[in-house]
Amino acid sequence: MSDANSLDALIQALKRLPGVGIKSAQRMAFHLLQHDRAAAQYLARALQDACTLVKHCELCHTFTEHSVCATCMDEKRDHTKLCVVETPADQSAMERTGAYHGLYFVLMGKLSPLDGIGPHELGLKKLFDRACDGEVQEVILATNFTAEGEATAHVISEALKVRGIKPTRLARGVPVGSELEYVDLGTIAHALVDRR
Amino acid sequence: MSDANSLDALIQALKRLPGVGIKSAQRMAFHLLQHDRAAAQYLARALQDACTLVKHCELCHTFTEHSVCATCMDEKRDHTKLCVVETPADQSAMERTGAYHGLYFVLMGKLSPLDGIGPHELGLKKLFDRACDGEVQEVILATNFTAEGEATAHVISEALKVRGIKPTRLARGVPVGSELEYVDLGTIAHALVDRR
Repeated sequence: MSDANSLDALIQALKRLPGVGIKSAQRMAFHLLQHDRAAAQYLARALQDACTLVKHCELCHTFTEHSVCATCMDEKRDHTKLCVVETPADQSAMERTGAYHGLYFVLMGKLSPLDGIGPHELGLKKLFDRACDGEVQEVILATNFTAEGEATAHVISEALKVRGIKPTRLARGVPVGSELEYVDLGTIAHALVDRR
Repeated sequence: MSDANSLDALIQALKRLPGVGIKSAQRMAFHLLQHDRAAAQYLARALQDACTLVKHCELCHTFTEHSVCATCMDEKRDHTKLCVVETPADQSAMERTGAYHGLYFVLMGKLSPLDGIGPHELGLKKLFDRACDGEVQEVILATNFTAEGEATAHVISEALKVRGIKPTRLARGVPVGSELEYVDLGTIAHALVDRR
C-alpha cells in the first residue's frame, strides 16, 4: 500500500480480528491514522490492559479481573442452581431477562470435534466436579439451540445422569410475539410435543 | 457484560473502529481474549508503532515513515505528471494498473461541506502550489466517480484553470468485460458522449 512498514503491519494486525478482511483492515487503519489517532492509542492501551488483567473465574470460568467473579461471590444468589451457557454474551442475555437468580458455568465454547474441541478441551471435568459438589441441586443447560449447542447439551446431560444428576434444558417453543404462520415447522413441532 | 472493567473498556475501544458495532466488538474482544491473546498484543504494538512512525509525505501527502515518500523520491518517475487521488488505497489501485508512471497527490479525503470539509480543510492550497511549481505539466484528476468525488474534481479543476493549468479527468465509460445490457444507463450515456 505504501512505503510505511508500520502501516502494513497495522493492516495485518487488524486483519487478524474475526470478520475483518483486507479491505476492512485497510479502511480501519486509514481511518485511525487519518482521523482518530486518539482512538488508536486508546485501543492499544485497552488491548494491553485486558491481556494483563482479564482472566477466568476459578468457579464459573467467565471473564473477570479477580480470582472469583462478582456473580459467584454474590451471597444473595441461589447457590443450588447452576446454569450452563456457552459464552459470557449468553450469560449476559440470561442476566438481562431478570428471571434467573442462580449461578453460572460458562463453557467458553462448545463441543466441535471437527475443530478438535472435545470434552477435555472444553474443560467439562471442572463442570462435573462443580455439579457434584453437594450444594448444586439443579443444572440448567442453556447452550445454544444450534447443532453444536445441542450436541454439547446432550453430552453434558448424559455425563451428569451417570453421576446421578438429572439436568434440565431451556424449553423449545414458539418465540414470544410471533405468528404461527411465520414460525418454522421444526419449532412448531417441538412446541406441540412439549405442550403443557 | 461482566465485572471485568478492562474487558468493557476493550469492547468500547473496538467499537470506535469504523464499521464495528457493539455485537462485533464483543465478538472481537471475546475471540482475542479466549483464543488469540498473541494477536491482541501484536495489534497493540502495531497501533503504537503506526501512531509513532506514520506521518504524511511532505510532497504528496500520502502515508510514509519518512519526510518524503519513496514514490516522490523515485528519480525514474515522470515528474511532469501529477495524479490527484482521494486515498492511499486509490493510489495503490492506480499503481497496480502499471499504466501510470508519474507522481501523485493524495488528498486524504474529499470535499464534503456537510461534514465541514471544505477546500481549506482538505489542504488544496498545497496541491495548487505543487501544480504551479513549474515542473508539473499535466494534472490528472482521479478522484472517485461519486457525488463527492466529482464535486472535488470540479472544484480543483476550476481552481487550476484560473491558474492557467488545464487538468484532465479519468475517462468515464463502459467497464472492461461488461455487457451493455447490464451496464447502468448513466454510464452508457457518458460513454456515448465521450466516444472516440
